[in-house]
Amino acid sequence: MSEVRHDWLSDRWVIFAPSRSERPDEFEVFERASRLSGSELCKSQSKISLTCPFCFGQEKETPAPVLVLGEGATNGEGVRWRVRVVPNKFPAVIPVDHFGMELSEIEELSETQPMCPEAPQQFESVLYHRRPLLGAHEVIIESPDHVASVTQLSVEHLESVFLAFQMRLAHWRRHPSLQYAVVFKNCGADAGASLVHTHSQLIATSFVPPEVARLSHRMEQFRQEFAKCYGCTVVAEEIAKQERIIRQTNSFVAFCPFASSLPYSFVVAPIEHNPRFEDLDRCALNEFTGMVFELLKSLESIFPQNAYNFVLHTSPFHDHWNRAFHWRLEVIPRLTKLAGFEWGSSCFINPVLPETAAAQLRQATAAHPEACENVGRTATC
Amino acid sequence: MSEVRHDWLSDRWVIFAPSRSERPDEFEVFERASRLSGSELCKSQSKISLTCPFCFGQEKETPAPVLVLGEGATNGEGVRWRVRVVPNKFPAVIPVDHFGMELSEIEELSETQPMCPEAPQQFESVLYHRRPLLGAHEVIIESPDHVASVTQLSVEHLESVFLAFQMRLAHWRRHPSLQYAVVFKNCGADAGASLVHTHSQLIATSFVPPEVARLSHRMEQFRQEFAKCYGCTVVAEEIAKQERIIRQTNSFVAFCPFASSLPYSFVVAPIEHNPRFEDLDRCALNEFTGMVFELLKSLESIFPQNAYNFVLHTSPFHDHWNRAFHWRLEVIPRLTKLAGFEWGSSCFINPVLPETAAAQLRQATAAHPEACENVGRTATC
Repeated sequence: MSEVRHDWLSDRWVIFAPSRSERPDEFEVFERASRLSGSELCKSQSKISLTCPFCFGQEKETPAPVLVLGEGATNGEGVRWRVRVVPNKFPAVIPVDHFGMELSEIEELSETQPMCPEAPQQFESVLYHRRPLLGAHEVIIESPDHVASVTQLSVEHLESVFLAFQMRLAHWRRHPSLQYAVVFKNCGADAGASLVHTHSQLIATSFVPPEVARLSHRMEQFRQEFAKCYGCTVVAEEIAKQERIIRQTNSFVAFCPFASSLPYSFVVAPIEHNPRFEDLDRCALNEFTGMVFELLKSLESIFPQNAYNFVLHTSPFHDHWNRAFHWRLEVIPRLTKLAGFEWGSSCFINPVLPETAAAQLRQATAAHPEACENVGRTATC
Repeated sequence: MSEVRHDWLSDRWVIFAPSRSERPDEFEVFERASRLSGSELCKSQSKISLTCPFCFGQEKETPAPVLVLGEGATNGEGVRWRVRVVPNKFPAVIPVDHFGMELSEIEELSETQPMCPEAPQQFESVLYHRRPLLGAHEVIIESPDHVASVTQLSVEHLESVFLAFQMRLAHWRRHPSLQYAVVFKNCGADAGASLVHTHSQLIATSFVPPEVARLSHRMEQFRQEFAKCYGCTVVAEEIAKQERIIRQTNSFVAFCPFASSLPYSFVVAPIEHNPRFEDLDRCALNEFTGMVFELLKSLESIFPQNAYNFVLHTSPFHDHWNRAFHWRLEVIPRLTKLAGFEWGSSCFINPVLPETAAAQLRQATAAHPEACENVGRTATC
């Protein structure tokens, strides 16, 4: 059963999810396969592709879907679905609706079963604080076909993926026991993915992770000090300076942040204030999709087949965050490895200035007019 | 020129060191070489080994040493040295003694050359705060031979390595312009190493990184609240509980922390209060070395050739940290990759409970009696 433990020194929570070590690791299988040659390798690869649990026709390999998008889709079986959302088979959290247990029951379980009842000590409660972690953990399967990158889909298809993000975020935001959700993508083994087939994940939790709360409080603090939103201010300043801008459309801007922790990481954010990604209307979502598609294509043209993560930061659920939170999509290419200094000091060493990275990404984006042409292709506004 | 930039939102500093992107990457060369076969591969590998800048006989490939240990060693050339410490050729900081510039001159440079003098804006100083970063960046070359792991050295040799750590830390602690230093090891490409030859690094900086300062303040806060050191308390509690202990000697204990962020990470700490690693006497250093040697051998027996980092957390330089800081060596195997959720929430998901990891490491340590026998071999106390 998943639990969170508090690290007193850093004042952070760590999620322990022993069931996740049982996940299959397709990349490891591939690595083993790469040591084979000729027909052995072909056999091995085709076997992997045939048994991918995310492929069309393999729907029984995953839990029943909570959302299926696509023409005529109902339960995702037998019909050619476009996007399928299923509960994660190896969840990092205790599913909030699991076993028919109510939140109160699980909390009670935690309180009536302290871990070391026979040895209560003076520092026990301070140093060894843990509790079950309730939430939701879903997988957004982004295509029925066995493709590795969303850039192999059409822009129209990618828009359905983002629509699925919106629908699931809106769903969990309504849940009375949950306070926070994040959608993220691990693309490639170096980014923490265990399956090749293009997918993203959503994790919702019954608490706001302390670091997210701290950053949200900082945004609120900025708003109180300067009487405007932090995100709006950064966006306006970056547009005025231009030197870190990659691309700008009517409603969105992409730029490499002034103090990016990792090389070539960039942010896509709305120009106008907007706390929640899921509140974007279809017209804006369409514009956003075209832009992200184009940016990911540019990134892939500079670093082919390189791993990356993206993280969709949308406001924590409580309404009081709305004034100060500015949603953003953060794209994090995994070009360097975290090393000892970073672990020791939490101070990152970035070998590439964001101005340099932005110039290169800007150039690559300009060299991909076909991607730009896709923008607005499915616009209905 | 290296600089630090402040990320207002997270309130962290990021070091930008463009010169570090010019480093050679031996692992990349190996990866390319692994695509060759037969004689091509042999040629390629022997070439790498011959031109390794850290090998005995290649001393001219590195800057002049600042410390050489070994019988009869003077400048490290022509004699069979044991450990050589050289300034990093690709430093992450501006060397504090560089160009004969004084600290005040560099600070003046920074103040008289604001980056955007023509466009001072309301939020400029808040959002775009940057300054040059002074410090020291050294490489501790741990062996004259081309070996990849310290466990291929003798315990006696490893003790010289740790002695070099102590001497360089003590050196920089005396520098009036510096406030903090950390020694760390990146072992293996997945841990951020660019060269195979066993080595560690020391980075000293003119400021205490905010996260280090925050943790140090937390230790001080604990001391004020409970009238004892946080580190002493955790060590005593872990020894009392036993369930996360890997090994214990007279003066040291190794355990997997209650809320470890990553699987199989562990800490080696003194049982008695001690803020600074470099204050250990030779007798204790010898005991510590035997224990660390044994633990790394155990780790390697469970995960052969797996990458890991270690980080030596010793007290920041100012004396006022002494009461509350408890030094520790943190060993971080790199078995999993940081994924999108971690980047988004700063909340780690660990698939292995520390109790499980400790039991496995304990068992592996017990199965390596030869390592235990080495403990005390060079004791002079």
